[in-house]
Amino acid sequence: MTRIRLALAQIDTVVGDLAGNVERISRRLDEIADCDLALFPEMAVTGYPLEDLVHKPGFVADSRAAVAEVAAMSGSCALVVGFADPGPGGVVHNAVAVCHGGRIVGTYHKECLPTYDVFDEGRDYEPGSGPLQLFRVGGVRVGVVICEDLWVAGGPVGRLLDGGAEMIVAVNGSPYHQGKQAARESMVTATAAASGRPVAYLNLVGGQDQLVFDGGSMVADPAGMVVGRAPRFREAVVILDVDVPAVRSGDGDLPVVEVSGIVERGDHLVAHVVEPLEEVAELYEALVIATRDYVRKSGFSDICLGLSGGVDSALVATIAADALGPEHVHAVLMPSRYSSDHSIADALALASAQGLDAITMPIEDVHLAFAGTLATTPEGGPVGLTDENLQSRIRGVLLMARANANGWMVLTTGNKSESAVGYTTLYGDTVGAFSVIRDVYKTRVYELCRWRNTGQLGSDGRPVIPEEILSKPPSAELRPDQRDDQSLPSYDVLDPLLEAYVEGNRTRTELVEDGHDPDLVDRVVRLVDAAEFKRRQTPLGPKVTIRGFGRDRRVPIVNHYRG
Amino acid sequence: MTRIRLALAQIDTVVGDLAGNVERISRRLDEIADCDLALFPEMAVTGYPLEDLVHKPGFVADSRAAVAEVAAMSGSCALVVGFADPGPGGVVHNAVAVCHGGRIVGTYHKECLPTYDVFDEGRDYEPGSGPLQLFRVGGVRVGVVICEDLWVAGGPVGRLLDGGAEMIVAVNGSPYHQGKQAARESMVTATAAASGRPVAYLNLVGGQDQLVFDGGSMVADPAGMVVGRAPRFREAVVILDVDVPAVRSGDGDLPVVEVSGIVERGDHLVAHVVEPLEEVAELYEALVIATRDYVRKSGFSDICLGLSGGVDSALVATIAADALGPEHVHAVLMPSRYSSDHSIADALALASAQGLDAITMPIEDVHLAFAGTLATTPEGGPVGLTDENLQSRIRGVLLMARANANGWMVLTTGNKSESAVGYTTLYGDTVGAFSVIRDVYKTRVYELCRWRNTGQLGSDGRPVIPEEILSKPPSAELRPDQRDDQSLPSYDVLDPLLEAYVEGNRTRTELVEDGHDPDLVDRVVRLVDAAEFKRRQTPLGPKVTIRGFGRDRRVPIVNHYRG
Repeated sequence: MTRIRLALAQIDTVVGDLAGNVERISRRLDEIADCDLALFPEMAVTGYPLEDLVHKPGFVADSRAAVAEVAAMSGSCALVVGFADPGPGGVVHNAVAVCHGGRIVGTYHKECLPTYDVFDEGRDYEPGSGPLQLFRVGGVRVGVVICEDLWVAGGPVGRLLDGGAEMIVAVNGSPYHQGKQAARESMVTATAAASGRPVAYLNLVGGQDQLVFDGGSMVADPAGMVVGRAPRFREAVVILDVDVPAVRSGDGDLPVVEVSGIVERGDHLVAHVVEPLEEVAELYEALVIATRDYVRKSGFSDICLGLSGGVDSALVATIAADALGPEHVHAVLMPSRYSSDHSIADALALASAQGLDAITMPIEDVHLAFAGTLATTPEGGPVGLTDENLQSRIRGVLLMARANANGWMVLTTGNKSESAVGYTTLYGDTVGAFSVIRDVYKTRVYELCRWRNTGQLGSDGRPVIPEEILSKPPSAELRPDQRDDQSLPSYDVLDPLLEAYVEGNRTRTELVEDGHDPDLVDRVVRLVDAAEFKRRQTPLGPKVTIRGFGRDRRVPIVNHYRG
Repeated sequence: MTRIRLALAQIDTVVGDLAGNVERISRRLDEIADCDLALFPEMAVTGYPLEDLVHKPGFVADSRAAVAEVAAMSGSCALVVGFADPGPGGVVHNAVAVCHGGRIVGTYHKECLPTYDVFDEGRDYEPGSGPLQLFRVGGVRVGVVICEDLWVAGGPVGRLLDGGAEMIVAVNGSPYHQGKQAARESMVTATAAASGRPVAYLNLVGGQDQLVFDGGSMVADPAGMVVGRAPRFREAVVILDVDVPAVRSGDGDLPVVEVSGIVERGDHLVAHVVEPLEEVAELYEALVIATRDYVRKSGFSDICLGLSGGVDSALVATIAADALGPEHVHAVLMPSRYSSDHSIADALALASAQGLDAITMPIEDVHLAFAGTLATTPEGGPVGLTDENLQSRIRGVLLMARANANGWMVLTTGNKSESAVGYTTLYGDTVGAFSVIRDVYKTRVYELCRWRNTGQLGSDGRPVIPEEILSKPPSAELRPDQRDDQSLPSYDVLDPLLEAYVEGNRTRTELVEDGHDPDLVDRVVRLVDAAEFKRRQTPLGPKVTIRGFGRDRRVPIVNHYRG
């Protein structure tokens, strides 16, 4: 049994920010100086995912130089640091360098490249195919893998274990979706228990475009028990001592790179095992972090949004206030001739409870001017859906004007249910740079609001989201007495059907077999397919389900399948 | 030497339209009845590319049923028909069936799956790994491959040839970009000449979302000479007799599926060899076909667009009139207080020359109403860039209102140069469902206009695009006396720099080394990167270069790389 001191350096990197990422790593070096081994995230010096940046040979060369800088700073603690490694013939590997004593003592190239869901690694990288090796760190033979490698039967983990690895470490850029952390923990603990060797799992943290990396790094002992678990959704360095049973070396063993020997220490560091979050809390946290990171990493401090008095914009305003501080959230109320008094009152109550900046700009004058101009066309002034869309677009233009004038980012407030069926106005309520709840169904929007209301209260001592907003029937208020349930089934019926179609990839025929109402299925499937051209023009937002409307769902716009 | 009669059935399929595609194939069966072998495009029964439709097991099962329908209709002419073939464990193959005498006599699964550029086949399909076989058709041992298979050294073509194939046929869904047809022809003729065996190349035709399949199917004889070439950009069935030298069979030969024997015919059909198009004509055709197919396959007949009097909207209007007929093109002139008289006159002259529907709707009243409403904000009324964007967005709202009221599709008129540097207004001049010239640099826009003006004249006997539009300096006319060259270098300088950065994947450092002005490089690179969030929200348009702003260029929005 050898005891090694391990650091899980769960940091938030920025894509393309090579100098900044090197600096982020170097800031942690004091903290981990007394460890044997420190793990940093997948692609730590470049940020992750790089997408087509990896096809710039100049960038990849810069990545190689950046990891050399990190290596030059390394001391007695071995660092596992991800980077993009140029190979012969212009190929690139998703790689880690093991850095120690001022140099790179070895590298590993990821073998298993995910090419599904949001991942395009088969497009971007050449799979590793070199001979495997182990690194003797703190006297322990360590096998190093990257993310997907841990999940693939027949991947490198089995060969590392068969080849004499006494411990497996996996560095990850694993994005969040609901339920994923439990799946990760099962895999890590099962791998440890089956092999009788400790497994360390280090994950990236922070938002990057559509993705939210949620941290939650962990270590499982040889019995498959979690002996250390880092927090979710925030940076942390967790240091712990891991007891590693010795594995007798044999003829079939992999070559070993000698890095460092056993260090005797007087103390025994035990890690805190952070408790798992409940599902709704986890989801809320994911949305907050995604929003904060997208806004800040894009160089903005303040956002604005249209506050209608409805539940969607109420939730997005609240998330933004939690992410950025209420003083950075600018709410714009834009009532039309069809807006109800209670909507305005509810929106103002929310702004007041949370201390948001809020102003009211009625759209009537602009609406009248548009109607007058459009009345000169052969088709005459706007009526019906044209007039509903017009009101929504006027609001979009006003929001963008305020954002342009003040240097704010516009947040989009639509939910997944309405995005799915296309009950949105392109260039109207879809305007913005970040669509906070585009992967959250309407029924879940209510759950999040109710959950948030059980937490910190508003400045007036009342819930941050006024109860009136949660209790009234949803309405777009674009014509007199409009209610969502006049044109859509109730969300309790709609959302499960959407989930089966979008996440479940069921066909029309199968949905009817599943027991959904045939007429409703026909209508909903048609709506979802026809709205694809709209969704392609809407801003990205955080993926929080197994299949959002982003890189994870790539469907043709022209698509005549009606099966 | 055996002579077989071959049909190149270059048809236009529709993605997801299984019944329609079966019907499109069946309509050709009389025409090809006297042939030995007829080739239909890659994924003929499903349309191509399927993207994530392939992840619906119900759809893949329907695809299998559709190819069985085609097989049931097959007679003495063997048909090569593409489809999505379900395999064990939920995998799917990009497949062709060889159909003959009412049944499927064999299938082939594509081995080489392109996972680069616009292609995601590594995401969508399982590569074929079954044993290869040959099909004896008309007495000839034919080796069948699919698209990428032909291009990969170490792919199946070499094994088919080594295994006794007397002829290679490749069915393709190969999208157009400038210069691609010459590359295809080189590959086909080189394969034929090197092997001494004829090679038949069948390509899909028609637009699908961002892609334009350009046909240009061909046959090369064993000397590497093209003996038949189908037209580009339109459906055609080319029938020709191909003389196939016998290859002595040997021990290492692949198994042969017996399909049909030699048919003695009295005549000898020689195919027309269609002349290659010149580059600018090819590009114009591609844009016309892409527009026609996107509009019609989306269920629309008419389009509208903003006609500013500038060159971009002039070109798009002309392409739309050529694609759909001038009576289906509705031009909207939306002058502001900054619009020049000559712009309005030029736009009206173009509409008149081409017989377009055109109306004029000044935006002044709406502009004033917005200014009044925005004057109530703390930041005051709109000035500077906010006011420029406002005017553009007013036009966007007016266009969308007309489109909504009349059931038209809006076409977007921006070019690649301005899309690259972000000299566009999101939700303003970017509105629309199809962005016809988003992959065409401004310098190329002028070339296309001049080329089109040498063709069919307008109804008034003058060029379809008035010379004034081509000779005046470009301006957005969003403030007094604005000209593009006040904020951008001339397009002769800008476009090559953009091409090196976007298509060439050069870094800032490399561009300076290449001799571009360092300050200009810094500015342009920054503009291109910062505009990524805008481009993600703009409508798709036809890819016509090696790297457009679509599925072929996937870069992060949050991206701090400045190298």
